[in-house]
Amino acid sequence: MHGKFITLEGPEGSGKSTQAQMIIRRLGEMGIEAMYTREPGGTALGEAIRNILQHNAAGEAPCERAELLLFEASRNQLVEKVIRPALEKGTWVICDRFIDSTTAYQGYGRGLPVDEVQAINSFAIHWIAPDLTLLLDLDVNTGFDRIAQRYLELGESADRFEQEERSFHERVRQGYLTQADTEPERFRTVDASQDPETVSTAIWDIIQELL
Amino acid sequence: MHGKFITLEGPEGSGKSTQAQMIIRRLGEMGIEAMYTREPGGTALGEAIRNILQHNAAGEAPCERAELLLFEASRNQLVEKVIRPALEKGTWVICDRFIDSTTAYQGYGRGLPVDEVQAINSFAIHWIAPDLTLLLDLDVNTGFDRIAQRYLELGESADRFEQEERSFHERVRQGYLTQADTEPERFRTVDASQDPETVSTAIWDIIQELL
Repeated sequence: MHGKFITLEGPEGSGKSTQAQMIIRRLGEMGIEAMYTREPGGTALGEAIRNILQHNAAGEAPCERAELLLFEASRNQLVEKVIRPALEKGTWVICDRFIDSTTAYQGYGRGLPVDEVQAINSFAIHWIAPDLTLLLDLDVNTGFDRIAQRYLELGESADRFEQEERSFHERVRQGYLTQADTEPERFRTVDASQDPETVSTAIWDIIQELL
Repeated sequence: MHGKFITLEGPEGSGKSTQAQMIIRRLGEMGIEAMYTREPGGTALGEAIRNILQHNAAGEAPCERAELLLFEASRNQLVEKVIRPALEKGTWVICDRFIDSTTAYQGYGRGLPVDEVQAINSFAIHWIAPDLTLLLDLDVNTGFDRIAQRYLELGESADRFEQEERSFHERVRQGYLTQADTEPERFRTVDASQDPETVSTAIWDIIQELL
């Protein structure tokens, strides 16, 4: 028996990690073992790559395409070492961001050719594809407000959310929605502007179809 | 005025780095500036990736596809940061191994889908393609003998060249030859079993067509 593979997608502030924990708790209550993972990282190689991507461990920033290829290398390692073995043991895997983030951010957001990005996604995941992808859709302004609030609570500055960034995040959102339209069997879109409990109930209704 | 981009391909023992130095010297005698580079490496990011690929810097070996994606990330950075700027300044670039090594070794040798490998090659190089690729063709046994000799001279063991490896290297060689047949405009195949001076003369005749 194989576990199910569920990915959560959407912008920062859409509540992906909160919802992932709720899914895992509810599955646990039904006696279904489920694990949480996120990208990039999750393996020793992935952490080394994460240090290069996020902490400039190489001493220079990766170029746009090199960055995408590093994300994909981390993804392949995570699939082969963590996700596939877990699914084969019957464990469900709840992954916070996966292939569709790359398509949305590097493809639609940054303007790399979407068909090439998706082809490299397919190459990297090789062994597995999500059974279900939950798109936590949120308009850009609401997402920005939530992030600003989080930053305020943490005492940090939110000034990197500038007007220029908004158009990028609009493209990312439209990219997500386009993907959801293109693959209606795999994607389910949830209105993430609702309160977390309402979102959680909507997600659980969807997941029960997999049971 | 743009410089020319020449790549050298072929197995270990085929004399690629020796021939690269001869090309650079001869171009220099004609007043043409030329630089040498090789993969993986050549940039700060490339060196970090080289440490992961060759010195296990991440603490675990990359899986097959992750390994290819890391090579491609290093390649993109080298193209963007070194090769393209040099060519734009009018400097010729002589590169020891490039895209065709990946197709030959990871594609034909290891059995990853050749069309997918070539698509990722194209994605990674984006800005440039070689003007000329010199395939230094050598039968596997001769290559092995040369490497064994080199190992003997260095006082090292050559025992990793086992029978099992021979079939891999045969596939790599056939992969190179198939690529040369498929792209006759870009590829020139040179018989690398000849002495270095004869090979160098043959290569120089080919390069003069570019002048």
